[in-house]
Amino acid sequence: MTESLLDRRARLMGPNIPTFYRTPVHIVRGEGVWLWDSDGRRYLDCYNNVAHVGHCHPRVVAAIAAQAAVLNTHTRYLHEGVLDYIDRLTATLSHGISQAIMVCTGSEANDIALRMAQAVTGKTGIIATDATYHGNTMAVSQLSTRRQPIGGRWPNVRLVPAPDGLRPVGGDVAGQAQTFAANVAAAAQDLENAGFGFSCLMICPVFANEGLPLLPSDFLHPTAATVRAAGGLMISDEVQPGLGRMGSHFWGHDALGFAPDIVTVGKPMGNGHPVAAVLARPDVMGAFREVFGYFNTFGGNPVSAAACLAVLDVIKDEELQENAACVSAYLLDRLRALRHPFLTEARATGMFFGVEFTTDGLTPAGDFAGDLVEDLVERGFLLNRIGRGANILKIRPPMPFSIKHADLLADAIQAALDTA
Amino acid sequence: MTESLLDRRARLMGPNIPTFYRTPVHIVRGEGVWLWDSDGRRYLDCYNNVAHVGHCHPRVVAAIAAQAAVLNTHTRYLHEGVLDYIDRLTATLSHGISQAIMVCTGSEANDIALRMAQAVTGKTGIIATDATYHGNTMAVSQLSTRRQPIGGRWPNVRLVPAPDGLRPVGGDVAGQAQTFAANVAAAAQDLENAGFGFSCLMICPVFANEGLPLLPSDFLHPTAATVRAAGGLMISDEVQPGLGRMGSHFWGHDALGFAPDIVTVGKPMGNGHPVAAVLARPDVMGAFREVFGYFNTFGGNPVSAAACLAVLDVIKDEELQENAACVSAYLLDRLRALRHPFLTEARATGMFFGVEFTTDGLTPAGDFAGDLVEDLVERGFLLNRIGRGANILKIRPPMPFSIKHADLLADAIQAALDTA
Repeated sequence: MTESLLDRRARLMGPNIPTFYRTPVHIVRGEGVWLWDSDGRRYLDCYNNVAHVGHCHPRVVAAIAAQAAVLNTHTRYLHEGVLDYIDRLTATLSHGISQAIMVCTGSEANDIALRMAQAVTGKTGIIATDATYHGNTMAVSQLSTRRQPIGGRWPNVRLVPAPDGLRPVGGDVAGQAQTFAANVAAAAQDLENAGFGFSCLMICPVFANEGLPLLPSDFLHPTAATVRAAGGLMISDEVQPGLGRMGSHFWGHDALGFAPDIVTVGKPMGNGHPVAAVLARPDVMGAFREVFGYFNTFGGNPVSAAACLAVLDVIKDEELQENAACVSAYLLDRLRALRHPFLTEARATGMFFGVEFTTDGLTPAGDFAGDLVEDLVERGFLLNRIGRGANILKIRPPMPFSIKHADLLADAIQAALDTA
Repeated sequence: MTESLLDRRARLMGPNIPTFYRTPVHIVRGEGVWLWDSDGRRYLDCYNNVAHVGHCHPRVVAAIAAQAAVLNTHTRYLHEGVLDYIDRLTATLSHGISQAIMVCTGSEANDIALRMAQAVTGKTGIIATDATYHGNTMAVSQLSTRRQPIGGRWPNVRLVPAPDGLRPVGGDVAGQAQTFAANVAAAAQDLENAGFGFSCLMICPVFANEGLPLLPSDFLHPTAATVRAAGGLMISDEVQPGLGRMGSHFWGHDALGFAPDIVTVGKPMGNGHPVAAVLARPDVMGAFREVFGYFNTFGGNPVSAAACLAVLDVIKDEELQENAACVSAYLLDRLRALRHPFLTEARATGMFFGVEFTTDGLTPAGDFAGDLVEDLVERGFLLNRIGRGANILKIRPPMPFSIKHADLLADAIQAALDTA
């Protein structure tokens, strides 16, 4: 069965279609933090942040079904749904961020955010880290180092070394925040010298794709000051940390204590329904909308808005942010207590965990972590790897993940480590 | 109520949020070809192609609700849904086009299509018409002339004069197809001379945004030959003509009798669910996927696939393509029989109609057409305008639009014209 699906994928989707795991799983059903494959095998989902409030949450499903049966059009007509949602979502934000453009994917949101910064500053230079991923449009994929962009990287993009808790930029943990900021300042100056000017730094506030490094909570303060001083905008890509996952805060940038000019969010917003948003202050939004008459046909449609409103309701009613804070502390303790010679560091930022494996405290044990992921899939636990060396377990479960689930996972990882 | 919603939009969405009509309508319910506003007023929808098989079609709603309750993940796991859909959709295509990438918006689809052409040719030059719209990512918006792109238009883009039945490119109706092709050839050569090289022509096969001009059915044959001879790819943007709307054919390029290398489709695919696709031959798909590991989190998810499969089922079972052919001929006759001194030409390509108004056979009567649209809204008919002079009624209803609806619309237009 699985073989035949892989054959069909190759025939219908072409080569290099990404799958997870050496033997890709064929998932047919989901409920809460659980997924089932076509053989009836159950997996604990320790990875998927799209199903933010749990797979197939009945309130989200009901909201989608109800609204789809009544109306699904676009924002060229007036409708309360999109307004109710933006009202609710912006109420969770500070720093004067009170307006939104609704779109369908995080890539679309980041593609707009880059243009917003260009509209505000009149400049085109962009800075990101050299181990990140912000999306897949032609423009946003310029910020990815996984593959060289088609046609070569644009000359107005600068990638600065990503921070790392074990291998600090500049070689010194204590000075890393200043070094990172200094590198951003140098890149901004370089963009000015090259004639592009500096428009923005786009950043995931917890450096999720970079490996979720353990950093001081004020790590980004010097960088935020640097960006401001250089006349650029700070874009906080909250696709991974946003919507309560931090536990301590609803947004990553609030946990890190800096004021972004633009916030983008996507995957978790609609619990699987394709929806994303760019959030900004009115001055930033106005600068963009004055020069670009952006309209997104599907963006903010009544069904998307209904799904998103239901997600906010569930986060609140089921106290999922509070659960994230609680489970974060509990599971981090359990992960730190795991025993294996290669286990170098376990870390967490809310309901998002990294467990780093090295052979000697520094050298990434990527193959080891890869085998561990596969072993855990065999044991019925879905997770994956991040980091430059692909040596860090990435644990980013749906938000209803509980203490009980944390115990199941920690026990399974230890059992896998014991036989590794 | 309407005033308050407009105020909320300005506060929450910022300035220059596009709406239809001088007094924007507040739509709260839809069913088939009908929409209702918050006062219970009913409108005949003569415009929306997103609700391709009719607003809130029960089979599509049921498919979405059922699948959303069972599973909604992504294509890194195996699932039949996306494969069943690509199988069914590619079966409607010829010219060796047998593979697809599923995404969420037509903009994303066109953004990928441009990169596919660049991957195949190793060149970056793009040609489009000078009165088109293909989407709103940073890259695709370079092809729009509505607003100058932020940061200026890229140097690798050339826009050729759009064809027009009344004001032919080159001044001669009989020679327009050759002149248009010659302009494409010159632009391709210019891109080669500039060092970008020529990668593709992106085109809507019926020139929908350009004004749906009345052109011979073999109009694009010389252009297709020219593009091929110049080593470029032909991208057929089928967001408007595709999925049976042509009546005579399932796809616009088949109605026009040319072989595209890449086909993109979006709005109508999921009847409002945010889904779109890029379709290509295996050699084109392979060239792209070898150099760019594209993955779209929401693209081709089980719910999107279920919605899209239901749309194909309804098109077939309710014979909507056949209905389009039938209603196209009938409504075109009725539109041609309308009487007003400014009425210059009524035209149709399947379930897509343009009614052009000029003051003297050539000078666009844009204000007149604008007033007419507003009058028709007052009468309970939703449509809009296209064309460089915004002087062409755009009638592009959901596909279940019937002879009865055509009569209602034609009668209403004549009544409006009688008092104009």
